[in-house]
Amino acid sequence: MNHAKPLPGYLVTRYQGWKATGYAENQHWYRRLAEEGQRPRAMVISCCDSRVHVTSIFGADQGEFFIHRNIANLVPPYAPDGDHHGTSAAIEYAVTALKVSHLIVLGHSQCGGVQGCIDMAKGNAPHLEAKTSFVGRWMEILKPKFEQVADIQDPVEQARRFERQAVVASLENLMTFPFIDSAVQARELSLHGLWTDIGEGDLEYYDAVQDRFLAV
Amino acid sequence: MNHAKPLPGYLVTRYQGWKATGYAENQHWYRRLAEEGQRPRAMVISCCDSRVHVTSIFGADQGEFFIHRNIANLVPPYAPDGDHHGTSAAIEYAVTALKVSHLIVLGHSQCGGVQGCIDMAKGNAPHLEAKTSFVGRWMEILKPKFEQVADIQDPVEQARRFERQAVVASLENLMTFPFIDSAVQARELSLHGLWTDIGEGDLEYYDAVQDRFLAV
Amino acid sequence: MNHAKPLPGYLVTRYQGWKATGYAENQHWYRRLAEEGQRPRAMVISCCDSRVHVTSIFGADQGEFFIHRNIANLVPPYAPDGDHHGTSAAIEYAVTALKVSHLIVLGHSQCGGVQGCIDMAKGNAPHLEAKTSFVGRWMEILKPKFEQVADIQDPVEQARRFERQAVVASLENLMTFPFIDSAVQARELSLHGLWTDIGEGDLEYYDAVQDRFLAV
Amino acid sequence: MNHAKPLPGYLVTRYQGWKATGYAENQHWYRRLAEEGQRPRAMVISCCDSRVHVTSIFGADQGEFFIHRNIANLVPPYAPDGDHHGTSAAIEYAVTALKVSHLIVLGHSQCGGVQGCIDMAKGNAPHLEAKTSFVGRWMEILKPKFEQVADIQDPVEQARRFERQAVVASLENLMTFPFIDSAVQARELSLHGLWTDIGEGDLEYYDAVQDRFLAV
Repeated sequence: MNHAKPLPGYLVTRYQGWKATGYAENQHWYRRLAEEGQRPRAMVISCCDSRVHVTSIFGADQGEFFIHRNIANLVPPYAPDGDHHGTSAAIEYAVTALKVSHLIVLGHSQCGGVQGCIDMAKGNAPHLEAKTSFVGRWMEILKPKFEQVADIQDPVEQARRFERQAVVASLENLMTFPFIDSAVQARELSLHGLWTDIGEGDLEYYDAVQDRFLAV
Repeated sequence: MNHAKPLPGYLVTRYQGWKATGYAENQHWYRRLAEEGQRPRAMVISCCDSRVHVTSIFGADQGEFFIHRNIANLVPPYAPDGDHHGTSAAIEYAVTALKVSHLIVLGHSQCGGVQGCIDMAKGNAPHLEAKTSFVGRWMEILKPKFEQVADIQDPVEQARRFERQAVVASLENLMTFPFIDSAVQARELSLHGLWTDIGEGDLEYYDAVQDRFLAV
Repeated sequence: MNHAKPLPGYLVTRYQGWKATGYAENQHWYRRLAEEGQRPRAMVISCCDSRVHVTSIFGADQGEFFIHRNIANLVPPYAPDGDHHGTSAAIEYAVTALKVSHLIVLGHSQCGGVQGCIDMAKGNAPHLEAKTSFVGRWMEILKPKFEQVADIQDPVEQARRFERQAVVASLENLMTFPFIDSAVQARELSLHGLWTDIGEGDLEYYDAVQDRFLAV
Repeated sequence: MNHAKPLPGYLVTRYQGWKATGYAENQHWYRRLAEEGQRPRAMVISCCDSRVHVTSIFGADQGEFFIHRNIANLVPPYAPDGDHHGTSAAIEYAVTALKVSHLIVLGHSQCGGVQGCIDMAKGNAPHLEAKTSFVGRWMEILKPKFEQVADIQDPVEQARRFERQAVVASLENLMTFPFIDSAVQARELSLHGLWTDIGEGDLEYYDAVQDRFLAV
């Protein structure tokens, strides 16, 4: 692999600062975490988007959350077909090996992946429909939900509603995994749906009884 | 989706604390990020492990890193077969839509996924070999590299070497993506391999010339 | 004292969140509490165990409970011998200076201190019998009660019964303090014994008439 | 023990509310904590004062902090004399059995115990000097530090300085315990001194280099 480069200097500098402060302050705890293993209380499925920091929002330090991040915080349906399924592998590890108590799906405003899915559904994104488009194929997980928001005229409002549908779709797909269904039935695991507004810092949770999102 | 539950109170409390401090202090910036979109300098591919916080190690704030996290920070080979590929979708979005300048793969010590792959390679993990094991199927991405470390007797040292091979495997697989190869050739993108020791806070980078990891 | 270190950053962040929310919302009340002094209605004697939060269980805010926490929520017998007695000092201050109306002893399941006492009573914990073992010497307060549960074969049931005996022992020892006996006789103070199951969230109280614990 | 009474109704009501909400939301985690045992990251030694809630200040949920509370957050010097030492037992359990990474002493403003020690040192509190006064005997742990603040004329300022000396005295006494000294030397444990202003919500930490308290 002769294409890898050394780390840019500004990141080396920041790492050295962390080593001398954040690491040094917590050395004992990090060593225990290394020796005894992690015991995270929750798994979070969040978007790769650089503007969404679940650890900041919840003041979480090393060891608290097992975090999977993908485009648009999507969970595909259960499909044990022998292929590589990164999201399903992360969920399986969290629930069956780490036995997390909470599984949180965190959606967000201004999601580029969700917008791409809208464009695709409206026939405005032929490049995403190509078989070779990984983003297009990935967003097909969400596409069936588009009918729920197809009638909304205002594009901004439509996108914000569809982002919440992405959270609901993931929650629904999670329940298709046998090990999740049984853990939920056994009251060993609870699912939670959240949506955050990047610009306003607001946080909403999915209320299953009313089938809508409410301010936290 | 009638299985979702409200957020536990301790997370609500912490969120409210962040809203009043971390968010309030940065409101103008977060609003700009929301309106103008993200422009991350780097994509980081890291593990879901709760003990690895790339934002802490590099003192990164909202907007800096586009982060994908999966089991063992693995990148599968390029396979445009029309299936859902979460990792490939995240990489495609980062490189072709966001045009990040750096793509960093961050491995780490005590990786449960890598250990599972070792167990599988040694014939000690029949449950991971089942077709229905998502973790097992996912770790097959790394399995061909096992021959590089098969002769190491000390199991701790073997795992630490194999964790570094997971980084190298991901770097190699990244280069099989045509849009990455061309961006690297055009000097628009550079790849970086890192490995961190959770307990000691050490950081190593992959030196392509010597084909080994060196302390940062 | 050149061994003290600054506070870890994650606690600084959380403190700042509390200052901007929990404190800010209650500033007037906290200032009154500071100026006029505390006037708690009850003293609670609870275990140091991190899983037992008496303020959560009873929704108690600042100013309500005067709380002493030690290993296994034990009260030693009255012994005015001039030595340092931390538990007795806390009780004296609560009853004679603050004149609390209730004195609550709260025991709990899975108590490590109580288990240590069982191990000691069965001759399985020589390290706790050493004169230098503070935990061993402290648990001797409870040891005489072991005969009440010595015949129970199931170790889990034995521990749960002994945890309740720790509450009864503390209630009995409280009555050996002259200032408590007289306050109880004058109907200025009432004693209460509780036991909580950490995993199930159950709460039982000691019924003095039947000499047994009943569900609250 | 025929003096114990049932729990007052208002506490029963609050407990039932917590069981249906706070407990129900976290049931899975509390069951894991019960089954697998606690693994607190820090021990906190705090005052019994009803106005000091360390769990609120640091947004800590069940399982995070092992908490000992006594009058004036004092630690006596190491004294393995075979007597009951509740504070020493709590510290021994936290450091040797639970292997906490941080040991935090939290002092506070308007501390009644510290004021009693000042009164005693000035000869204004004969009742505290009686051999039978548990509070008086307990506060003798702090008394030698009075010379550090004896010259301060303003009684309010004198008390606030002495409260901070109580934290320093406890930190010093902690280092007289062989198992603490060795854990600190082995970099497995760090000590921290804090002082909080109840009315203002301020928090200061002890800076060992400058030998003074600084705002967090």
